[in-house]
Amino acid sequence: MSFMVEKKIVLIVADGMGDRLIPKLGNKTPLEVANKPVMDELARLGITGIMDVVGVGVPPGSAPANLALLGYDPYKYYTGRGAFEALGLGLDLMPGDVAFRANFATVDNNLHVLDRRAGRSLVEGDILAEAVSKIKVESASDVSIIFKRGVEHRGVLVLRGSCLSKDVSDIDPEREGVKINLSKPLLDTPEARKTAEILNEFTLKSFEVLSNHPVNISRVARGEKPANIVLCRGAGTMPNVEKFTDRYKLCGVCIAGIPLIKGVARAIGLDVLNVDGATGGLDSDFMAKANVAIKSASNYDFIFIHVKAPDTASHDGLIDEKIEVIERIDKMVGRILDGLSGYELYLAITADHCTPVLLREHSGDPVPVLIYGPNIVNDDVNSYSERTCMKGGLGRIRGLDLLPILINYACKAAKFGE
Amino acid sequence: MSFMVEKKIVLIVADGMGDRLIPKLGNKTPLEVANKPVMDELARLGITGIMDVVGVGVPPGSAPANLALLGYDPYKYYTGRGAFEALGLGLDLMPGDVAFRANFATVDNNLHVLDRRAGRSLVEGDILAEAVSKIKVESASDVSIIFKRGVEHRGVLVLRGSCLSKDVSDIDPEREGVKINLSKPLLDTPEARKTAEILNEFTLKSFEVLSNHPVNISRVARGEKPANIVLCRGAGTMPNVEKFTDRYKLCGVCIAGIPLIKGVARAIGLDVLNVDGATGGLDSDFMAKANVAIKSASNYDFIFIHVKAPDTASHDGLIDEKIEVIERIDKMVGRILDGLSGYELYLAITADHCTPVLLREHSGDPVPVLIYGPNIVNDDVNSYSERTCMKGGLGRIRGLDLLPILINYACKAAKFGE
Repeated sequence: MSFMVEKKIVLIVADGMGDRLIPKLGNKTPLEVANKPVMDELARLGITGIMDVVGVGVPPGSAPANLALLGYDPYKYYTGRGAFEALGLGLDLMPGDVAFRANFATVDNNLHVLDRRAGRSLVEGDILAEAVSKIKVESASDVSIIFKRGVEHRGVLVLRGSCLSKDVSDIDPEREGVKINLSKPLLDTPEARKTAEILNEFTLKSFEVLSNHPVNISRVARGEKPANIVLCRGAGTMPNVEKFTDRYKLCGVCIAGIPLIKGVARAIGLDVLNVDGATGGLDSDFMAKANVAIKSASNYDFIFIHVKAPDTASHDGLIDEKIEVIERIDKMVGRILDGLSGYELYLAITADHCTPVLLREHSGDPVPVLIYGPNIVNDDVNSYSERTCMKGGLGRIRGLDLLPILINYACKAAKFGE
Repeated sequence: MSFMVEKKIVLIVADGMGDRLIPKLGNKTPLEVANKPVMDELARLGITGIMDVVGVGVPPGSAPANLALLGYDPYKYYTGRGAFEALGLGLDLMPGDVAFRANFATVDNNLHVLDRRAGRSLVEGDILAEAVSKIKVESASDVSIIFKRGVEHRGVLVLRGSCLSKDVSDIDPEREGVKINLSKPLLDTPEARKTAEILNEFTLKSFEVLSNHPVNISRVARGEKPANIVLCRGAGTMPNVEKFTDRYKLCGVCIAGIPLIKGVARAIGLDVLNVDGATGGLDSDFMAKANVAIKSASNYDFIFIHVKAPDTASHDGLIDEKIEVIERIDKMVGRILDGLSGYELYLAITADHCTPVLLREHSGDPVPVLIYGPNIVNDDVNSYSERTCMKGGLGRIRGLDLLPILINYACKAAKFGE
């Protein structure tokens, strides 16, 4: 008796995992130094290569990078970070909405920025967010304000109404000691002018409402910085995409810790599962993610797992922590392999970009990629790293190639012509 | 005294030759197991690589794949299989003609398909084809019917007249036990509606004419299945291409066993030579092909040789036969090398796609490719297979790259700029 074993496709993206040579590590990379037997074994059994995620030599943000890895051309579908953040916080964007990333910040009376994060851990954030939500714009009666708080000092602002545009400049100057910017239209259109005007009005009203808010009066009385303004940046609109299920004929799910990636997933129509303990930080519970991934296999063909922590360690310049995070990711991959051993598994591991820990910034270096699956013609690379994968059988591919390659290996690709 | 040795470019395409790892072969591929000293020696002397024939991760049909290998973008020039089949059977298509693949089939009185192939070997096929050719369509007096039989139960239908379209759905449901489909326009245009209507009328008339045909009355009397309907699919039109000679300044010829590939060759203006014994089946006479190729060199600069048999073995799941076919292809290549030793030879060997024998279907895995020619900078790959060619000096190329690379090596490429 024989029966069909179900196929599952798993894509694991470790944010910023790729790196450069670090003198302190004997001119090796964190991936080369980390003890990661599972990924090395998968490299030995599978096929490897290097990948330019959004373009050759282009350092990508995580939103466009993950769009590419999920098969959506970021040059077409990356419509501003604000939209993905808003989706990631669970807001349902409508066509025409313009969304912004927002920070509660501290400014002086001349609107000079004293602290872009208003002390960062803003325990009274929900109360202040409620006050901000009630702001009405007078310059356009047809436009309403939607404000939702994220973690710490973060949130999103959505402008909803007719004739709005994402082509406006940021309020947030992204540094301290300078005056906030007023938003300007980036295109000479009525829509951009209208949106900039509304955003400026909202910003000044947020200063008025928050400065006088009892929460901030108490904070000042206690010697804390008041969260007395909302600074917006990263205007974006909902991308007009063909849903993942329609495009790839796969039922897909996303398991991610941070709102941005959840938003990318929601934008293309992936379901998003929340994982207790998946924080996006170095303390994130990777095993909880693995367990949710394993459980999700009964409902989904395609499981996308994003781990933020290597990028966080890299931005903070933490070499040892980055190595340790990689070792914990390796254990997570092991758990996933065990948990999905009842399926015919096609699995890819990669990074959405390099974040060299000595640079503390995203770079456009190609990332190493590995694909594992039964009977795939493998290469003779037997560990997973930036250097070994250069010799891999995949060669040098683009981010947009990854998903089609993976889907083809799983024999789920559509044939072209006869 | 010195004299110019004439250059010849030879492209050998082995249909579906690429594969995946086969556990029964010790996790090797048929190419890795086959004894093929000639191809291995060419790999040693030449340069190798892997190639995405129509697109990364895209499983192609043979028609679009061979268009790409001959330097014609299939996304632009693949205009439906019917056209290439018709050209391959020797019909001359005119602009505006719409051609279909056609099967003689057996249906019951409710037009449910009992046998899509009417028993397959249809000895009376020519007589029935003549009867079908005489069908007149009443719904459009300006449209005429051209019908030509192929081998066994196969044939092609061409509709010739004004305002026709290839954007109509198939009649053939491609399975048995269900009713035939009526054709529907796939675009909301008068041309598509007209074509669907004509095709439906033709189909029902074919049932009428064939049901009452003496051949079928005799077949039924003998207890055989009547070939009582013509089922069409794969509407196509003649692609509007720049002829091969104009595009590449080479006088080219095609040596192939099956009509589809002959049709692709005719569509781009290659001459097609018929070879006695070249059947497209496992029994095809490869040496006869080699001999025709050698002879053709006195008339042509570019010789394209297509061998169908590895694909046939793969679709039928025949591992040993696939290996044996590869070994016979190797001998064919040896014969060609010997026969053309008086020329300066530039030769490429590849597959139009992989057909992994365990999958029995085309896949979008890259195919191995080798190019051999005097003084070409070679790599250190010394056998021809999916795995070895991953390390080849060509890297990972696209199907459309192959011909320009080959023509360049033969110093026949046009210079760009000064």
